[in-house]
Amino acid sequence: MNKLNEKASGVYIISATPFTDNGELDLASADSLTDFYLEKGVSGITILGMMGEAPKLTDEESLQFMQRVLARVNGRVPVVVGVSHASHRHVERLGKTAMELGAAGVMLAPGANLKTDPQVEQYFLNVAGLLGKDVPICLQDFPQATGVYTSVPVILRLIEALPQVVMLKHEDLPGMRKLSQVRSQSLEQGLRRISILVGNGGLFLPQELARGADGAMTGFAWPEMLVQVCQAYAQGDPERGEDIFDCYLPLLRHEFQYGIGLGLRKEALRRRGVISSAAVRQPGPVLDSIDLAELTGLMSRLEQRLTDRGVN
Amino acid sequence: MNKLNEKASGVYIISATPFTDNGELDLASADSLTDFYLEKGVSGITILGMMGEAPKLTDEESLQFMQRVLARVNGRVPVVVGVSHASHRHVERLGKTAMELGAAGVMLAPGANLKTDPQVEQYFLNVAGLLGKDVPICLQDFPQATGVYTSVPVILRLIEALPQVVMLKHEDLPGMRKLSQVRSQSLEQGLRRISILVGNGGLFLPQELARGADGAMTGFAWPEMLVQVCQAYAQGDPERGEDIFDCYLPLLRHEFQYGIGLGLRKEALRRRGVISSAAVRQPGPVLDSIDLAELTGLMSRLEQRLTDRGVN
Amino acid sequence: MNKLNEKASGVYIISATPFTDNGELDLASADSLTDFYLEKGVSGITILGMMGEAPKLTDEESLQFMQRVLARVNGRVPVVVGVSHASHRHVERLGKTAMELGAAGVMLAPGANLKTDPQVEQYFLNVAGLLGKDVPICLQDFPQATGVYTSVPVILRLIEALPQVVMLKHEDLPGMRKLSQVRSQSLEQGLRRISILVGNGGLFLPQELARGADGAMTGFAWPEMLVQVCQAYAQGDPERGEDIFDCYLPLLRHEFQYGIGLGLRKEALRRRGVISSAAVRQPGPVLDSIDLAELTGLMSRLEQRLTDRGVN
Amino acid sequence: MNKLNEKASGVYIISATPFTDNGELDLASADSLTDFYLEKGVSGITILGMMGEAPKLTDEESLQFMQRVLARVNGRVPVVVGVSHASHRHVERLGKTAMELGAAGVMLAPGANLKTDPQVEQYFLNVAGLLGKDVPICLQDFPQATGVYTSVPVILRLIEALPQVVMLKHEDLPGMRKLSQVRSQSLEQGLRRISILVGNGGLFLPQELARGADGAMTGFAWPEMLVQVCQAYAQGDPERGEDIFDCYLPLLRHEFQYGIGLGLRKEALRRRGVISSAAVRQPGPVLDSIDLAELTGLMSRLEQRLTDRGVN
Repeated sequence: MNKLNEKASGVYIISATPFTDNGELDLASADSLTDFYLEKGVSGITILGMMGEAPKLTDEESLQFMQRVLARVNGRVPVVVGVSHASHRHVERLGKTAMELGAAGVMLAPGANLKTDPQVEQYFLNVAGLLGKDVPICLQDFPQATGVYTSVPVILRLIEALPQVVMLKHEDLPGMRKLSQVRSQSLEQGLRRISILVGNGGLFLPQELARGADGAMTGFAWPEMLVQVCQAYAQGDPERGEDIFDCYLPLLRHEFQYGIGLGLRKEALRRRGVISSAAVRQPGPVLDSIDLAELTGLMSRLEQRLTDRGVN
Repeated sequence: MNKLNEKASGVYIISATPFTDNGELDLASADSLTDFYLEKGVSGITILGMMGEAPKLTDEESLQFMQRVLARVNGRVPVVVGVSHASHRHVERLGKTAMELGAAGVMLAPGANLKTDPQVEQYFLNVAGLLGKDVPICLQDFPQATGVYTSVPVILRLIEALPQVVMLKHEDLPGMRKLSQVRSQSLEQGLRRISILVGNGGLFLPQELARGADGAMTGFAWPEMLVQVCQAYAQGDPERGEDIFDCYLPLLRHEFQYGIGLGLRKEALRRRGVISSAAVRQPGPVLDSIDLAELTGLMSRLEQRLTDRGVN
Repeated sequence: MNKLNEKASGVYIISATPFTDNGELDLASADSLTDFYLEKGVSGITILGMMGEAPKLTDEESLQFMQRVLARVNGRVPVVVGVSHASHRHVERLGKTAMELGAAGVMLAPGANLKTDPQVEQYFLNVAGLLGKDVPICLQDFPQATGVYTSVPVILRLIEALPQVVMLKHEDLPGMRKLSQVRSQSLEQGLRRISILVGNGGLFLPQELARGADGAMTGFAWPEMLVQVCQAYAQGDPERGEDIFDCYLPLLRHEFQYGIGLGLRKEALRRRGVISSAAVRQPGPVLDSIDLAELTGLMSRLEQRLTDRGVN
Repeated sequence: MNKLNEKASGVYIISATPFTDNGELDLASADSLTDFYLEKGVSGITILGMMGEAPKLTDEESLQFMQRVLARVNGRVPVVVGVSHASHRHVERLGKTAMELGAAGVMLAPGANLKTDPQVEQYFLNVAGLLGKDVPICLQDFPQATGVYTSVPVILRLIEALPQVVMLKHEDLPGMRKLSQVRSQSLEQGLRRISILVGNGGLFLPQELARGADGAMTGFAWPEMLVQVCQAYAQGDPERGEDIFDCYLPLLRHEFQYGIGLGLRKEALRRRGVISSAAVRQPGPVLDSIDLAELTGLMSRLEQRLTDRGVN
């Protein structure tokens, strides 16, 4: 498998982690989910991220899931593995294990309680040093979840200091100016142009592609939309991209809700026949009848729109 | 002027506070902005809220602005005045002054650093006690800005204990289930049905109206959309409401961004000829050329959509 | 081994988790540390708490350490095991494993992102339901670390609803009035009187014992002081307790510092010959020469004071 | 009056703001409190800080209090005025007014919601630019209250860029290494040596003086202790300083508690005959009978200790 590099673009889907109704890891659904993502045209798959409920897995479950997905993908697209852990030595262990098993790179969020630029920078320098230059890193910049804010100068210094940093998962919010600044200041300083994929459910995907993002790394239950929008922008047709995006925006905005959003995403994947159960490990969202009916309504409206556009 | 009561519905627009380019209070624009809101069919106006930059005004400026807007409205619609202050005695003073000057009621967010249900409940009991039963209160539930979380049982106990609590500004996020619970549990317990208006820029307005909200209290720069959506739901035509909403959703989502959203809102109001300057008091967002072009693009797409729908 | 119950009092020391200089789990030091705690007269030992760096252990390391300490203690005092985990099913698994291996009970902090009283209460009800009535629970109330605030009414409702809740680890800060309220309101409502042990390094131990605490659950590197102070209060001689406490207060206050405090605690234990290395797993505090000299100075002053008092 | 400069040392007491029992500003007590501080030998007085309940005053009350204290001090010691405000233009106005009225300088905390080094740095650059070079600034670094973290490199860059930054109020916690780093790195870079006064109630005053602090800026109700400790260190007798400090440490640690600490401080000042009422503006701490008795006990023990030392 080729390793992750700065040329990465398109959609790196954030994979859900499927469970059975009683909360066991559902490896059969891991297969069907992987197949679904590949069919929809994703460029890569990211597993064991926050929306993959990684903190709710045991060490052994994480390993099982990682092995299963890597085997199923079998080198067809790069797989990025989330390796965040409270202890540096375990980030190192997880990262090296992932690479040995065939991952293309690792995704790394900053540890808890980092408060200033030097603290954030040092965190990544330390962990990258332990992982070594052979492990490509995607920096995850997601302050709403981590509580850690990474400034543009820190990102640029890390790009300069660490050749293995090849990708930024950009999901600061609001963060569009930050994205523009990373691109423009990186150019001004003559730094490597790394891959930038955007998160936050893709809520600002068209604007972010226009500002220099290379694609999306998020887990929206309709990955085909993300793929089509990225392709339209890549083909120089942003209006088409924005038209497609707007069709899905009501649903995307709905799934974007923190907490319950994961429940909605899994339920949508279940309804689409991709996973066998929408179960989220507890504590986690459980949809009630109003939530389910609301999702049905939004999905019907999407169907109607796509029909109106002659897509279906 | 009639006082605010539980029957309030429709759109209570959150008014911006206009400044001149050099940051002085712009009372002439306060007039034109007020006229604009009234023309667009709002049911009420809320001034001196967070998005009205109230903390950036001196005591004297707050009073001037309040007087000017109340005089301009001249009783045509209810005006709600934000009176949050770090000191109870000043909440009391501000609230009583507002009522004397013709306000219909006050909006009150919880003070800082309230951590538990008893603390939040006691806060509102204390302040409402000082204001007295003659001052109608809109509870503002906006934890993303205040850091204070108000549970459903606390809201219900306040409805029961305080007849002057006639409205909830609902902007917990995600908060749709909470809205449903306030409605259903209030009914089960035989409590008064108070008015619930939703905030968060209206990002979930259709779903929230379906769940029992009576309208919106937010400041989107196209208040006519909010008005039309609320009317459609009130007339039993939610599909029409949702169709209108979806046209504006790309722009609404864009303006929803914290921080820069206020700059975008003021710039949109300026472009629509409503206020003379888009200036936000510093520290605050300043739009750059990319931001301005992005807004232009989204506004053009809205125009096109409205034309396509035969609205323009 | 007898299970943990409401009569628990005295010092339940929060055990450090010793590592070798290169960060491996140091099970030999786990033995000597356990012996040290027992020699100093502790009434119980709590392992795998936050100051025990539990989040930095793999599942396997946690199990190894738990087994080693339980074997070394061999029933002489109760051992409480921290079982906090992001997933309910793993709290259940860890708790049941601990009890099978001979633990006296489990310590449980609330999960992340619980914001209101009903959320906090439901969390404990759910987890306690999974653990079952045979697993005694110590509620850990430590909002500075968890970000979760547990109100007095919630604590009282949990005492009423869950017979297995036998202990409160009280370390809200400031929290002395809360401690008094739990005691007085519990009495007024005719609830069980549970054990309350205080944390926060013991910074307010004398005042808290006077307010109705039964002892301390903290990890100060001079547990003999904690034991002597608790004994003095139990014997009705608070002045003696406070005199002893004041001797150690400069050092205790020094060790109380978040973050670096753990490094100072482990270094003090190393200097006292109890563990072989002061290493903290990275990321974590590393003492520099100034820190080490400062600790030396404070330890010398303690020696001098104890000599002056005729203790040494 | 001479302006504040880098040579400032000793105790700059954080002044309480006295109210009458019914919450009115008590200007007579402002006089007696000012006299008390001067009698105890403080080197300066800081008014309208957070512990001075500044956010609970109206604009007019702030001005009245400022004028009263400045008139009473009448140039005998420098007076530093807190001028933090949500709007830059009002910081400027407050700062210039204070200087015109005879203040020696202003104290400035960073605004809310600053998350990264560049944001914090820019905040101070902007505000200092508005105030101009003639207004000496004390940077307040108090992240526990502001939520803003200021890194060592930012402090150093501000010292370099802004000649008017002459003092750092250091109250990051834990923050002793930070203090050492500011001193050592400032020296290495050949920067001006500014005054550093420590806050946090003085909880680590001896260690901080040893690490290069020039004194304290805090509001402990026994300022004579702070003065004596600073003098002892200035005279090269740290052991004496630490001995004095340790006598008061039980009370100091007690007053250090956030929230209720202000109530305890005002009550102690009232008992010492300095102010007429211990009232804190609501919402704020109200001491109950247990709190009052506890304070009495700690004050008695202090008396006894001072008698034992032959001080009284």
